[in-house]
Amino acid sequence: MHDVIGYAAASPGADLAPWTFARRDPRPQDVVVRITHCGICATDLHAVGAGNPDDFPLVAGHEITGVVTGTGSEVTRFAVGDPVAVGNIVDSCGKCVECRAGRENDCAEFPTLTYGGADHVSGGVTKGGFSTEYVVDERFAHRIPDGLDPAGVAPLMCAGITTYAPLRRFGAGPGTRVGIVGVGGLGHVAIKLAHAMGAETVAFTTSEAKADAARALGADDVVLSTDAAAMAAQARRFDLILDTTGVALDLAPYFAALAVDGTLCLVGIPPGELTIDPMSLIVGEKRLAGTGSGGIPSTREMLEFCGEHGITADVEVVGTDRIAEAMARLGRNDVRFRFVIDMSV
Amino acid sequence: MHDVIGYAAASPGADLAPWTFARRDPRPQDVVVRITHCGICATDLHAVGAGNPDDFPLVAGHEITGVVTGTGSEVTRFAVGDPVAVGNIVDSCGKCVECRAGRENDCAEFPTLTYGGADHVSGGVTKGGFSTEYVVDERFAHRIPDGLDPAGVAPLMCAGITTYAPLRRFGAGPGTRVGIVGVGGLGHVAIKLAHAMGAETVAFTTSEAKADAARALGADDVVLSTDAAAMAAQARRFDLILDTTGVALDLAPYFAALAVDGTLCLVGIPPGELTIDPMSLIVGEKRLAGTGSGGIPSTREMLEFCGEHGITADVEVVGTDRIAEAMARLGRNDVRFRFVIDMSV
Repeated sequence: MHDVIGYAAASPGADLAPWTFARRDPRPQDVVVRITHCGICATDLHAVGAGNPDDFPLVAGHEITGVVTGTGSEVTRFAVGDPVAVGNIVDSCGKCVECRAGRENDCAEFPTLTYGGADHVSGGVTKGGFSTEYVVDERFAHRIPDGLDPAGVAPLMCAGITTYAPLRRFGAGPGTRVGIVGVGGLGHVAIKLAHAMGAETVAFTTSEAKADAARALGADDVVLSTDAAAMAAQARRFDLILDTTGVALDLAPYFAALAVDGTLCLVGIPPGELTIDPMSLIVGEKRLAGTGSGGIPSTREMLEFCGEHGITADVEVVGTDRIAEAMARLGRNDVRFRFVIDMSV
Repeated sequence: MHDVIGYAAASPGADLAPWTFARRDPRPQDVVVRITHCGICATDLHAVGAGNPDDFPLVAGHEITGVVTGTGSEVTRFAVGDPVAVGNIVDSCGKCVECRAGRENDCAEFPTLTYGGADHVSGGVTKGGFSTEYVVDERFAHRIPDGLDPAGVAPLMCAGITTYAPLRRFGAGPGTRVGIVGVGGLGHVAIKLAHAMGAETVAFTTSEAKADAARALGADDVVLSTDAAAMAAQARRFDLILDTTGVALDLAPYFAALAVDGTLCLVGIPPGELTIDPMSLIVGEKRLAGTGSGGIPSTREMLEFCGEHGITADVEVVGTDRIAEAMARLGRNDVRFRFVIDMSV
């Protein structure tokens, strides 16, 4: 074990502060990653503010980019100096049907989350990317494509894969029309991805002020979701709609906007329970789907796709001295579109 | 126009009684069908008991079999004497994307329902199969396969197609495990169909008394859904679950029973709104789907499949003098598994 510095909340709701904790020394299959950047996701806010008290002191952060500074004796894919990214999963059983199918995010034993998860190697609770270093099985480290800014790549490890996976799974591409609800951390990446896949991409937002930004990101059209007439005009138009908002929306207008056989996919996690009129699914044979993260193969595919298309998240980079400010602003939805911590500052 | 006899409710909740009303004379594309049998569906109970007062006198019934007694000058598919079946749709716009794709049940103009729908030919409200005759565009009449009992075929036109369509759509077949929730009018046909498609078929029922019947219908296993331990043992096992109950179930145990990427499909129509924990969809990337009826191609395919596999509904046949009794017993769930009216008695 060796000491590293994290930015930890001592208890739920506490301010983040520097905290020294131990990382494991690398096993043969591990790489040591010096963290250069870590995105701040809404999940981090929730975990820090209202997570399980047993998980504290909590080091959040699961949108990690960095540089390999050490490799175990059996590591084959990486060498010291390689730029790598780590997302929200750092281990899985490797034996279940899902792991063998490359769907480690759906591991039957539940995957090891990057922070706040049961650490099956060192015991205790995993500690995340708001820190100077991570030690991870090389299977869960991913090469950063040449030419992409590591700061903008960091959020791809959560916001990117979480939207890329359902866009691919539900067939977004030429000849399809895709709606992206919410133009925030996840939504702005989803717009870029859907557009790059060749889908006609329509953004739904409550904010007129975001309409131009959504178009600049690649949206072919923007619908103000507070405008009932504009929403009604979308009836039966969409093959796929991703709800990236993570808030408790009235889903009825979005079900109405789906074409026959269309899918509304929850990408963010709404608080509490959803209320759904069954007829909104039965008429038109529609579907409500959930998605979360992605497995190793689709994460690598996502990064390659982003490399080919020059896609990164639009980020506001802050130094470690401004984490608390960034968390507070994210809580007020005051960010375009993702905060990323520069761990060197 | 010419007079026929129907069994009509004069107003919502009224007893059914013989009533003379007019059917249109056949247009060039119409066939005239002497109705021999009509199934009684839960939808009929609801429509007769609590339908829109403007639709009364109401003649229910949309699970129709009979014999062609007349053909319009342009009819090509049928001749007098042919045994035919008519389901819950008797017309559609024929021009929209869905109609052109053979998904007339999803017609953008809404299809014409067999009863209680807007009759775009004769005006007023369509009158259903609790009657001696139907006049219908030959596109919506379907040949009954040789060797099948017309009484047992009648329910296939609703209970059959409504379960066949999602079983096909979601890939039921060899190597898949399919759950059928409810062993009633729809569920008993769904068990037969899923078994004949080669899926491992598991019935979920609240009634221990139905376990043997479910096995006799083709279920490989039966789970008592009131047994929490038995339900918990089903976790992550099912590729597809059809909820045929039409009641407001707690869906959580069924989402838990789905495998990763699995689909829970509403086949019956639960009253009121559904309440769903979004995490039950997000963890395991699951889906909630709706389905209703089927288009012309899939209805014909379903009938051919039933002909090949010798599948009909298990029915209790009653004469026209016992419709009221049958409706009352259906309201108490006292039927195995479908009442069918013999219109000749």
